[in-house]
Amino acid sequence: MIPFELTILGTSSALPTLKRYPTAHALNVRERFFLIDCGEGTQIQIRKYGVKLSRIDHIFISHLHGDHYFGLIGLLSTFALLGRKNDLHIFSHSQLPEILKPQLDFFNDDLSYKIIWHPLNFKKNDIILDNEVVTVMSFPVKHRVPCCGFIFSEKPGLLNLQKDKIEEYKVPVSWLQYIKKGEDYVDENGLVVPNSALTCQKHLPRRYAFCTDTSYVPELSEIFENVDVLYHEATYDSRYEKRANETFHSTAAQAANMANSSRVGQLIIGHFSARYKDVTVLHDEAKSIFPNTLIAEEGMVISIEGRKEIL
Amino acid sequence: MIPFELTILGTSSALPTLKRYPTAHALNVRERFFLIDCGEGTQIQIRKYGVKLSRIDHIFISHLHGDHYFGLIGLLSTFALLGRKNDLHIFSHSQLPEILKPQLDFFNDDLSYKIIWHPLNFKKNDIILDNEVVTVMSFPVKHRVPCCGFIFSEKPGLLNLQKDKIEEYKVPVSWLQYIKKGEDYVDENGLVVPNSALTCQKHLPRRYAFCTDTSYVPELSEIFENVDVLYHEATYDSRYEKRANETFHSTAAQAANMANSSRVGQLIIGHFSARYKDVTVLHDEAKSIFPNTLIAEEGMVISIEGRKEIL
Repeated sequence: MIPFELTILGTSSALPTLKRYPTAHALNVRERFFLIDCGEGTQIQIRKYGVKLSRIDHIFISHLHGDHYFGLIGLLSTFALLGRKNDLHIFSHSQLPEILKPQLDFFNDDLSYKIIWHPLNFKKNDIILDNEVVTVMSFPVKHRVPCCGFIFSEKPGLLNLQKDKIEEYKVPVSWLQYIKKGEDYVDENGLVVPNSALTCQKHLPRRYAFCTDTSYVPELSEIFENVDVLYHEATYDSRYEKRANETFHSTAAQAANMANSSRVGQLIIGHFSARYKDVTVLHDEAKSIFPNTLIAEEGMVISIEGRKEIL
Repeated sequence: MIPFELTILGTSSALPTLKRYPTAHALNVRERFFLIDCGEGTQIQIRKYGVKLSRIDHIFISHLHGDHYFGLIGLLSTFALLGRKNDLHIFSHSQLPEILKPQLDFFNDDLSYKIIWHPLNFKKNDIILDNEVVTVMSFPVKHRVPCCGFIFSEKPGLLNLQKDKIEEYKVPVSWLQYIKKGEDYVDENGLVVPNSALTCQKHLPRRYAFCTDTSYVPELSEIFENVDVLYHEATYDSRYEKRANETFHSTAAQAANMANSSRVGQLIIGHFSARYKDVTVLHDEAKSIFPNTLIAEEGMVISIEGRKEIL
């Protein structure tokens, strides 16, 4: 299957622990890697878990708390040391280039590639990337500082041929590449066979939503419809709901309620407070509301299969 | 024995590898920890190898290449999250506070402690710290950017009492604390017993020298005299001596020559180029010149015992 695969690189909240690195996710869409947040040590995690450095052309930074971007400068430096040539697109708060400027200036002409900064819109949903493999939408969440989540929607891929129909209509081999792309077949006599009679799609375009750091925002459930996998922060369990509200974070129950109301396929919770050596309490709390909940762990790979289309 | 103990936290050069973190060392002098360089991930290594975060009041940054300081902002942030109150002294190039300013400004009033910046002198040797446990001298080395090494010299500790002499001169218990600090004993009749007749010192004050990143600078051997343990970079083996010269780094042979000519007790080599998966070639090269050479490894602890004093 064409990959649409998430690798979790970090699961801690602001304070890293012996086992947990700060936030970073890598999404592999057809062998292109999209990096989401870049806490300290992300480049080390990237190497450890086999994410392909040279295939990262897009980085998304949700907000400017250090645990979500302190690893960026090291990664940019490593790209330069490796002689990277491709443009690098970074989607972040407009202040980030200024913040990193004194460090980037240090490279002078040694930065072998171009960084293209894209400021995020923290007021409304925004399509920030639309290329041949994916569409990315940012959406504002509620945190102490401006913060966005991201939804990655796969572009429809090539269609699967229905072999028996191809034989039945005697479609020549030279036509197959066009049929896979969605074209109708027209035979020598001008007879049109609609594409839908010749192909099937294995799954609907796949969708991954990344939602951290934020208070519980019930209204978001609308935009999570048709999301296969939702990553939602769950910094605390419900005993600390007051603290979650005060610090603009969510509880495991709130993350699960979000998954439930938006009917996503699967929920992954992460961004755990350093107080939890064992996160079973968070897992149990979420599962009691939304059973298909996973606990994020460093190095976890989730291969998103996508929902079957009802034909 | 009162600790004078080095913990190696990172051994890579600019490009970290799967096994090697960028440079950072922690020196424990009588349970005070001195952090030397702070590459990305240092705070994670600190937790992993049991260095006491709350006992770090002094950080020394050799130079402003990212692999020697990109972990500093994360550590400063963690100190704030933990509610640190003690002043933190940072010895570095005078540009570092400016470079980190946009990130530090983000804390606003949330930085619970004071950072006191001490600019290094890259023109001449300089005593940069002199407190009750240690004297630290910085010395300029030769790199592409201004860079300093550091020598940590232990302050003489409390003296060991010679029990038989204490009995012979009938020294009262109330006097012992003063004798341990070096005072002479004066008995009821005014008879003076010199301190040296009552005490002995187990070892000479201990010295650790940290020397990276630098070309081979033979003249430095003078200041390494009486150093117990010398950490000297050995980015390359001698086959790459030309490249070492061009990039202002050293070979393993050069590091060993330095150890040899300055007659240090032990040599540790590190800051290995990412090209070496196995550093045996570097170890063998150094040992052939200076047998008492160790290869730096993440988590290695070297308890420095000090030379015996010849009484």
